[in-house]
Amino acid sequence: MRLSLNQRTTANWTLPEAVAGCVAAGIEAIGLWREPVADVGLETAARMVRDAGLRVSSLCRGGFFTSGDNHADNVAALDEAAALGADVLVLVPGGLADRDIDGARQRVSDAVAALVEPARDRGVRLAIEPMHPIFAADRGVISTLAQAVDIAEAHPSDVVGVVVDTFHIWWEPGVLDQIARAGERILAYQVSDWITPLPADTLLSRGMIGDGHIDFARLTRAVAAAGYLGDVEVEIFNADVWAAPGEEVVATMARRYAELVEPHLTPCAPRSAAQATPPRHTRAG
Amino acid sequence: MRLSLNQRTTANWTLPEAVAGCVAAGIEAIGLWREPVADVGLETAARMVRDAGLRVSSLCRGGFFTSGDNHADNVAALDEAAALGADVLVLVPGGLADRDIDGARQRVSDAVAALVEPARDRGVRLAIEPMHPIFAADRGVISTLAQAVDIAEAHPSDVVGVVVDTFHIWWEPGVLDQIARAGERILAYQVSDWITPLPADTLLSRGMIGDGHIDFARLTRAVAAAGYLGDVEVEIFNADVWAAPGEEVVATMARRYAELVEPHLTPCAPRSAAQATPPRHTRAG
Repeated sequence: MRLSLNQRTTANWTLPEAVAGCVAAGIEAIGLWREPVADVGLETAARMVRDAGLRVSSLCRGGFFTSGDNHADNVAALDEAAALGADVLVLVPGGLADRDIDGARQRVSDAVAALVEPARDRGVRLAIEPMHPIFAADRGVISTLAQAVDIAEAHPSDVVGVVVDTFHIWWEPGVLDQIARAGERILAYQVSDWITPLPADTLLSRGMIGDGHIDFARLTRAVAAAGYLGDVEVEIFNADVWAAPGEEVVATMARRYAELVEPHLTPCAPRSAAQATPPRHTRAG
Repeated sequence: MRLSLNQRTTANWTLPEAVAGCVAAGIEAIGLWREPVADVGLETAARMVRDAGLRVSSLCRGGFFTSGDNHADNVAALDEAAALGADVLVLVPGGLADRDIDGARQRVSDAVAALVEPARDRGVRLAIEPMHPIFAADRGVISTLAQAVDIAEAHPSDVVGVVVDTFHIWWEPGVLDQIARAGERILAYQVSDWITPLPADTLLSRGMIGDGHIDFARLTRAVAAAGYLGDVEVEIFNADVWAAPGEEVVATMARRYAELVEPHLTPCAPRSAAQATPPRHTRAG
């Protein structure tokens, strides 16, 4: 069972509720967010997740490199990831501070470079998240997987990698080649759908997998072929999803995952029961 | 004066009103749309524009290649362009018919190829418009200038080229290189801005130049350096712009154009009065 509940999918659940919801639904992994972790306290959160037997597929999120100096906050995020047993910190690049997009992109590169040593020291990997160009101005100036891999490749693969999030990269020309190129640098695979008409608040425009236009078989097969063995996070920002009872959302998510994603995670042969608990992605370091 | 009023910017104006509005504002070119042209009749429209002494910078739009067979309608659009004295037909690729984005992109390539001979016969050039990935699902599966040039390059440069629209491509990694690569294939340069927060209706989310995040100097210099000598269309889809009186919109547009775009159209030297009426882009054929 490689399905992971990203906390944002059930945004109205506290961390204890999310942990309980995973256990009740038989979900073995969770993608944590810093804010709800802080709400219960870092040590309590770490113990809660550990006691429930959950893997932490990632911690969201560091980054926001383009407006001011967030280095210290990102190092703090690395500390939190280590304490939580998350070996991946998701980095949201940040948007424009002015109209200089090339300059903003350079600032992301520089800031990632400055985090390599702190990340290595803590045994946490940095996962650069390319974001749909709809967010280029206000949230993430790294717009393609190709661009994210370009930045990551300047650093050792055991420290810096990328997030493959279907919502952000499904439209990218040549994306299958880029997924193959990313290879062992794929540190997180997140799934949600692109729905139309796009909801009015673009930040909340992600759909439940299966509700939109994305071919999950195509992308999942590529991610699997690239060697990714980690968890698959369902991460949905959507007001309608958030308004629904968490248990229903988790049940729908698990059903859609089983139908649309899981069959494509092992491209060469059907998964047997013996393969039910695959290892996390291997750590090269 | 290379400023052109794309009819969609003053969507509530009929064709006669738009023609009169251009003349009153000293604007020498207009980007026509098929629907308002049809409202007054093709021959009347052609005569009106000709009598007013306006250049027709482009006709919008053909395309929509991905849903059914629109070849005959596109040939009709080429006939209309020729009758109007427009030597450029803008092609909006069309969105997804199903979840097969690679297939949809191939259908665009194939459909463009089928239009090359009809276009050449009529002396009209085909301008493929790459569209912001926000529209990949429902409007245009060609998502980058790189992709549009890839398709265009399979055909003679005197027949098939691309549209550079700042709204669609401002975020594209490597876009300056792609503009240089496009070179003589740049058949139209359209400007509008990316504003945040994005208006609720994404189709109407374009801002007046200067209101948003786009660096028009950067893109305009690149387009000029690529050799583009044609008109610059202001094309804005925005409910607020449409609700304002057309005269005000045209006045704002002309002022912003003079401030943000025109100074960068001649990168090597300031323009002199003798250069005030540059030639249209040269026809290679």
